[in-house]
Amino acid sequence: MYSLKELQQIIETQLSKINLNAEPKELYEPVEYILSIGGKRLRPSLVLAAYNLFKDDVENAIFPALALEVFHNFTLLHDDIMDKADLRRNQQTVHKKWSENVAILSGDAMSIKAYELLANVPAEFLTEVLQSFNKTALQVCEGQQLDMNFENRLDVSVDEYIEMIRLKTSVLIAVSLKIGGIMGGASKNDVQKLYDFGLNLGLAFQLQDDYLDSYGDVKVFGKKIGGDILANKKTFLLIRALELSDSKNTDKLLSLIERNDIKDELKISQVLEIYNETNVASLLKEK
Amino acid sequence: MYSLKELQQIIETQLSKINLNAEPKELYEPVEYILSIGGKRLRPSLVLAAYNLFKDDVENAIFPALALEVFHNFTLLHDDIMDKADLRRNQQTVHKKWSENVAILSGDAMSIKAYELLANVPAEFLTEVLQSFNKTALQVCEGQQLDMNFENRLDVSVDEYIEMIRLKTSVLIAVSLKIGGIMGGASKNDVQKLYDFGLNLGLAFQLQDDYLDSYGDVKVFGKKIGGDILANKKTFLLIRALELSDSKNTDKLLSLIERNDIKDELKISQVLEIYNETNVASLLKEK
Repeated sequence: MYSLKELQQIIETQLSKINLNAEPKELYEPVEYILSIGGKRLRPSLVLAAYNLFKDDVENAIFPALALEVFHNFTLLHDDIMDKADLRRNQQTVHKKWSENVAILSGDAMSIKAYELLANVPAEFLTEVLQSFNKTALQVCEGQQLDMNFENRLDVSVDEYIEMIRLKTSVLIAVSLKIGGIMGGASKNDVQKLYDFGLNLGLAFQLQDDYLDSYGDVKVFGKKIGGDILANKKTFLLIRALELSDSKNTDKLLSLIERNDIKDELKISQVLEIYNETNVASLLKEK
Repeated sequence: MYSLKELQQIIETQLSKINLNAEPKELYEPVEYILSIGGKRLRPSLVLAAYNLFKDDVENAIFPALALEVFHNFTLLHDDIMDKADLRRNQQTVHKKWSENVAILSGDAMSIKAYELLANVPAEFLTEVLQSFNKTALQVCEGQQLDMNFENRLDVSVDEYIEMIRLKTSVLIAVSLKIGGIMGGASKNDVQKLYDFGLNLGLAFQLQDDYLDSYGDVKVFGKKIGGDILANKKTFLLIRALELSDSKNTDKLLSLIERNDIKDELKISQVLEIYNETNVASLLKEK
């Protein structure tokens, strides 16, 4: 049984072997860049870990593992354009470093690269793996769309928020475990259990990510702290704070959300003050 | 043997059956919109036509045919953002009608939809079809990147231009015929011949498209006439005009390319005047 650290090492090595030294360089350099600036390699590690529950030769599951990582980074690249984010993993985002057009097109190339990796799955598993992957990939788009829709709404419920992060984050983590299981020859029942476990892991992961966006350390988190607050993202923290505030704080929160003329740092500190008063961070940890 | 018109009819019917009535509507409505505003359905017709050379039951090749059409429309959707185009098939482009973010994300969903259709290819052909499709899809991105790179260059040669349109346009037409052949059980040799024929057909098609962009009828062409001229696209017409003009006209062309302060209609008419003097339209027809 491999440790998570060993699996991450295998993935780093294999990721670096993907040939991106191709022309035109404007297309492939951004792909190499975003793949090289790190990340936890969570999804590919989960593919290999799930495979490793059933079989030892984890290198036989490396292609779908890499496909998941490349696809995930493609979604980050395009999300960063849509969210107008400047930083990703403490580095400039692709649309900032190059341009929006470069980010759109190299993202497109990256999503195709993911399928190129996936096409190496042995024929006996290919249809099932491809269909699971496609269904999930569409759900990820649906989740991102809901996330953007919620930015313009004030009445998002906790249930709607959970459904959004299920689509945006959890299903990709769940399908990573599922595909590892399929490739490892797991029973239908075990594959389903892996998927369900992944859904819950994904929800916990996203709640933690929301917490760190408001309360994390920029050096560790790698993104600007307070980004969600500035974008009026309807996270668990904001939704619960809106529900739990007294009428004075509710009015204050609503006016902070609507104002564009206030300095970033002031908006973040004032919203955090209300988060602290309503104690929503500890409610998140209980969730 | 089906006529092209009959094949187009089959495709229209099957395209309209793709279920896009899903949530969130901001994601799926633009996909339905761009698929519904028409087009010649050239690529899927070629899949079925090539299949029909070997077998009669063309409905068995419908999924890869639809995948090619959906993928092609995805590339148009994203290209229109990058090219800042307002019109497509005489209708507003998606990023104009909705927003850039909607166009980015629904384009992404559309490319995944293409793979969802492709995943229905029988397992015996799936690996080969998927690999051909992926290779081609990446080449299409490379072609679009070259096309954008060329906008900022004045020294593009006819050979470079031909290589760009081979990637941007021809390979997708060629792979349509190839996939039809593979699905129809054609020999390796016949599949290669279909592909090579498609490459040449694609080049002719793109040269004709360039001609119509400058000399077409907007009602038939469905895009603004002169769009390539305004975007300083290095088409066959502009490259040859730069090569063949006398020094006075060369200077005039170069200054027209560099100027942003000139009215659109004036720029188009002055460039067309030089095209006419250098007779490049008839050179294109000879090509």
